[in-house]
Amino acid sequence: MPEPAAAVRGVGVSAGLGVGPVLLLAGAVPEPSGTERFNGDAETAVRLASEALEATAADLEARGAAAGGEAQEVLGAQALMARDPGLADAIKERAVQGATPARAVFDAFARFRKLLESAGGYLGARVADLDDIRDRTVARLLGVPVPGVPEVDHPFVLVARDLAPADTAVLDPARVLAFVTEEGGPTSHTAILARAMGVPAVVAAAGATSIPAETRVMVDGSTGEVHVDPEEGAVEAARALIAARAAAAEQASGPGRTRDGHPVALLANIGGPKDIAAALEHGAEGVGLYRTEFLFLDRAAPPSLDEQRDAYRAALDAFPGGKVVVRVLDAGADKPLAFLSATDEPNPALGVRGLRILRRHPDVLATQLAALVAAAEGTRAELQVMAPMVADAEEAAWFAATAGQAGVASAGVMVEVPIAALRARDLAGEVDFFSIGTNDLAQYAAAADRQVGSLSAHQDPWQPGLLDLVAATAEAAGAVGKPCGVCGEAAADPALACVLAGLGVTSLSMGASALPLVRVALASNTHEQCRNAAAAARAARSADQARAAARAELPGLAELGL
Amino acid sequence: MPEPAAAVRGVGVSAGLGVGPVLLLAGAVPEPSGTERFNGDAETAVRLASEALEATAADLEARGAAAGGEAQEVLGAQALMARDPGLADAIKERAVQGATPARAVFDAFARFRKLLESAGGYLGARVADLDDIRDRTVARLLGVPVPGVPEVDHPFVLVARDLAPADTAVLDPARVLAFVTEEGGPTSHTAILARAMGVPAVVAAAGATSIPAETRVMVDGSTGEVHVDPEEGAVEAARALIAARAAAAEQASGPGRTRDGHPVALLANIGGPKDIAAALEHGAEGVGLYRTEFLFLDRAAPPSLDEQRDAYRAALDAFPGGKVVVRVLDAGADKPLAFLSATDEPNPALGVRGLRILRRHPDVLATQLAALVAAAEGTRAELQVMAPMVADAEEAAWFAATAGQAGVASAGVMVEVPIAALRARDLAGEVDFFSIGTNDLAQYAAAADRQVGSLSAHQDPWQPGLLDLVAATAEAAGAVGKPCGVCGEAAADPALACVLAGLGVTSLSMGASALPLVRVALASNTHEQCRNAAAAARAARSADQARAAARAELPGLAELGL
Repeated sequence: MPEPAAAVRGVGVSAGLGVGPVLLLAGAVPEPSGTERFNGDAETAVRLASEALEATAADLEARGAAAGGEAQEVLGAQALMARDPGLADAIKERAVQGATPARAVFDAFARFRKLLESAGGYLGARVADLDDIRDRTVARLLGVPVPGVPEVDHPFVLVARDLAPADTAVLDPARVLAFVTEEGGPTSHTAILARAMGVPAVVAAAGATSIPAETRVMVDGSTGEVHVDPEEGAVEAARALIAARAAAAEQASGPGRTRDGHPVALLANIGGPKDIAAALEHGAEGVGLYRTEFLFLDRAAPPSLDEQRDAYRAALDAFPGGKVVVRVLDAGADKPLAFLSATDEPNPALGVRGLRILRRHPDVLATQLAALVAAAEGTRAELQVMAPMVADAEEAAWFAATAGQAGVASAGVMVEVPIAALRARDLAGEVDFFSIGTNDLAQYAAAADRQVGSLSAHQDPWQPGLLDLVAATAEAAGAVGKPCGVCGEAAADPALACVLAGLGVTSLSMGASALPLVRVALASNTHEQCRNAAAAARAARSADQARAAARAELPGLAELGL
Repeated sequence: MPEPAAAVRGVGVSAGLGVGPVLLLAGAVPEPSGTERFNGDAETAVRLASEALEATAADLEARGAAAGGEAQEVLGAQALMARDPGLADAIKERAVQGATPARAVFDAFARFRKLLESAGGYLGARVADLDDIRDRTVARLLGVPVPGVPEVDHPFVLVARDLAPADTAVLDPARVLAFVTEEGGPTSHTAILARAMGVPAVVAAAGATSIPAETRVMVDGSTGEVHVDPEEGAVEAARALIAARAAAAEQASGPGRTRDGHPVALLANIGGPKDIAAALEHGAEGVGLYRTEFLFLDRAAPPSLDEQRDAYRAALDAFPGGKVVVRVLDAGADKPLAFLSATDEPNPALGVRGLRILRRHPDVLATQLAALVAAAEGTRAELQVMAPMVADAEEAAWFAATAGQAGVASAGVMVEVPIAALRARDLAGEVDFFSIGTNDLAQYAAAADRQVGSLSAHQDPWQPGLLDLVAATAEAAGAVGKPCGVCGEAAADPALACVLAGLGVTSLSMGASALPLVRVALASNTHEQCRNAAAAARAARSADQARAAARAELPGLAELGL
C-alpha cells in the first residue's frame, strides 16, 4: 500500500470543518465465478436467489423507513427494482443452465444494467442504484460482508470511493463529522446529501481511500483540503471553530439580514409537501423554489387540477405572510416525462425542455396555472410563479402574459440560460421577478454537463464568469426595482451567499438544513463587506482565487470556521 | 388543398434574392403492403431486391462522381450502406417468410433504422440518409417515381419538406435560384449547402410545400420572406439587384477591406486538402479554420505523424505569405472517435470533448503538434494552431505552453464556450490569438442544440446577446493588440460580416464560395458604418430587430440586394 500523503485535496462541496477518525466504506463484493456449476437443482438455486433478493428488498425498505423523507422514496424505488418480475425470469433462465445462485443474480442484473445504460439520462444515472442491489444480494449469497457503512460506536469521517443512497440513508448526522469521496462532483449524491445534512464534505479527492482506517483527518469542506494526521494545535483550533459555529447557528433566528441589517430573505427549496416541516423547522421565511416535477413523474398523464391544487396549498398554508415561489413543470433533460418529452434528443440538456415543452403543450401549463391560482385563493401567503429555461425577452413576455391571463398576480422567470443573464435588462421589464438557477447556468456557461463528475471543476459556482452573469441579472432587476433571488446550490455556501448578497441578490433559497449557517454567515458580515467580497471575487481569474479573495473580505466567516 | 398564403415566412439562412418558378421535390414513396404475399419464390424475391439495391447504390455513386468534393464522400457512404451484407441477410429472412421484394427491403431497413436511432448523435442523424436509400430502392421495385429533383429545362426555386444530400448533390448552381424548405435550421444540410453554393435559402418555412408547382415566388434569404406571385415591379427591382450583385462579386478581388480601407482578412474554412482549390479560386487570403477531424474519423488509431504532416503541408504550400490556422483535433460531441471518446455521455455536446479529450490523451496532441511543426518547416505560410472547447485562462495557458514546447510559434484558442467569451480578458494574455466559433457559442449561450431544427430560432447568430459575447472577445483581444477572428457560420452572412468587423473582429473565415459576397459587402460600407451597425444591433432586443437595425446602418448592402 502506498504511503498516504500528508494532505489529500479535492473539491469542497459542503462548507465547514470536521475532525475525526476515518471510517472506510466496506469494499467491493467479488464477482461470483462464471464457471462453477451449482451443487443442487435449478429449483433450489432459484429459491435461494429469490430469498436473497427479497431480503435485500426488505432491508432497503427498512433503511428507508428509518430514514424517512426523500431517502425513503429512493430506497423504496430500489426495493421495487429488486422485486422486478423480469429479474426473477432472468435468474431462472441462468439457474436452469446450471449457474450458482450468486452467478444467476449477477448475470440477470447485467442484462438490466445494459438496458438502463443505453437509455442514458436519468435512467442511465440509476445504474449505480442497480449495482448496489446486485452487490447486496450477491454478498448475502456468497456470505461476504454486505457493502455499506460498518457499525461503529464513535463519530467518524466517512471515506469512500463514492456513496450510494443506501449507504447514507440511515447515517446519524450527529455521528458523521465529514464526508470524503474519491469520485463525484458538486452535484453528486454525496454533495447534495452532505449539504442537506449540514455536514462538511469534500469530493473528487484522489487517493482518499488509501488513508488507513481510524487515521485522524481534518476535513475543510470550504477549501477541499483533507489533512491527514493533523497537529494537535490545528485540531484544537478547528474544534473551537466548530463549537463556535454550532453555538452561533443555534442562537441565530429570524429573517435573513447582514450584520448592519440589510435584508436578504432566506427561503427553502422544496420538492413537495413532505419538505415543508424541515423548512419551518430551520426558520425559512418562505419557499424560494417549489419544484413541481414530483406531481408529474412516473405517470401516464398529468395530475388533475384538484390534486395539484392541494399540493400547492399545503405550502401556501405553511407560510402565512411569506412568499411561495412555484416553478411550473420543468420536464425534459434529466427529468423526461413519458407524455411530454422527446426521447431521442442527442443532447437532452440542450433540447426541448422547460418552457420550450410547455409552449408545445399549452393545456398542461393552463391546468397547472389554474391549480396554482385556485390554491392561492383565501391563503395569506404571496404566490409567485416562474418559468424554467427562458432564453429571451419574447419567451419571458409570453409566459408573463399567459400567467397573467390565468390570474397569477406575480410572474417571473428562472435565469439559467447564459444569454438570458447577459441580456437580463431586456427581460426585466417583462416580468415581476428573477430567480437565478446557478446549477444550470454554470452548466451552460462552461458547456460542462452537471451529470459528468470529471467536469466538476467547470461547474464551480465561484467561477468569476458565473458571478458576472449573476451580477448582470441582479443589476438589471435592481435597476427597475424588482427582486432577484438565487435558488441554485450556490445559495447554500455560506461564503458565496455573502458574495451573492453583495452582487445585489435579494433572496437566497436552499435546502432547509443549510439555512442556519447561511443566516449566521450573513449576520456576521456587513453589506459593505459583502459588496467588497463580490468585487474581489469578480476581479479574480479563477474559482479558487475568487473563493480566497472573497473570504479575505469576509472576516466574520473565519471567526466561525466557515 | 388550402389556399396558399401571399407570403410564407421562414428563417433566412443564406443571403440574397431569388425569383423564379417553384419546383417541388417529388413526394414520398408509399409504404409497400405488409400483407400481400410475393407471387414467386423467395430466391426470386431476394434477387429482385438485391438488383434494386445495387441499382440504387450505383446511382448514388454516379451522382457522387458527377458532384465531386464533399458530396461524393456523402453519397459514397450511402452507397456503402446500400451494399451492407447485414441488410442482404435481413432481406433474405423476410423473403423466406413470403414478403414481396419491396416489403422485404422496407422491413430490413426498419431494423437498421432502429439501431441508428438508438445510437443517437452523429449516427442518429444518419437516419435520413438511410431512409433515402430505402425510398429509392422501394420506388424502383414498386415502379413509382424515384424521389428527388425532377428534370426540368429552366431555372427554378426548389421547394421541399427537407433536402437530402442525394437530392442536392447534382444540382447545377446556375439553375437553382433559391432553396425553400419547411424543416431545418441555420445548421441544417440545406443551409450549409446553400451557403456553400452561394444560393439564397429560407428554411423552417411552414406551408411552403403547399405553394403550387410553377408558381412564381420571390425568396429573400436575408429576411426569410418568400413572396408568392409577387408584383411585376417588385420582381424587376429584385432582378436588377441580383444582376448588380453578380457584377460586383465578379469585379471584387484582393484582400478584404471596408470601403475606407480598414482591413478585415478573408479566409477559408477547409476540411482537408480537397478544399484548397476552391479557397484559392475564391480569393481566400489564407485558411482561417483547418478542421483536422477528417484525418481521424473512421479508423481504429490516430494517423501517423507523416500522414498528418503531408495533409497540413498541402495547405501551407497553397498560401505562401498567408496564414493558415489549424484547429487541433476536436473530437467528441457529434464527432465521436472510437479510440478517444466516451460513448455513454448523457449530453455529448456538454461532455468531454475538444481540448478536454486531448488533455486526457496527451500523446495524440503531441503527435499532431509535432506534425504541424514539421509541416511548417521550409514553407512561407504563417502557421497558427488553436485549441477547441477552451473554457478558462488555465486551459488557455496549458495549451499555449504545450504548443510552445512543441515548437509552435503562434498558439491561440477557439472562443466557443460562453464563459471564455465573458472572461476573454483573462484569456487574452495567455495566447497569441482568438478565433470565435459562433455556432457552438450560440448553442451554449442559448442552451439550444445545433442539431435540433425546432430550436433554430435560438441559434440565430444575430441574437444581441451573442453579439455581446463577440464584442467582449474582440475588445479583450484588441486591448492587448492581438488578432480575433470569427470562423463560425456567422462570418458568411454579408450583413453580419460587416457587423462583426464593426465589433472589432480582425478576420472572417467561411466556406470558400461565400467569400465574394462578403468581400463585396465589406467593400460597400465604411468601417464607421460597420461600427454603427454593430452598435445598433447590440441595442436591439431580438435577432430580428438586430438584423433590421444593422441593415439600416449599412446602405451599401441594399444597393446590392444583400
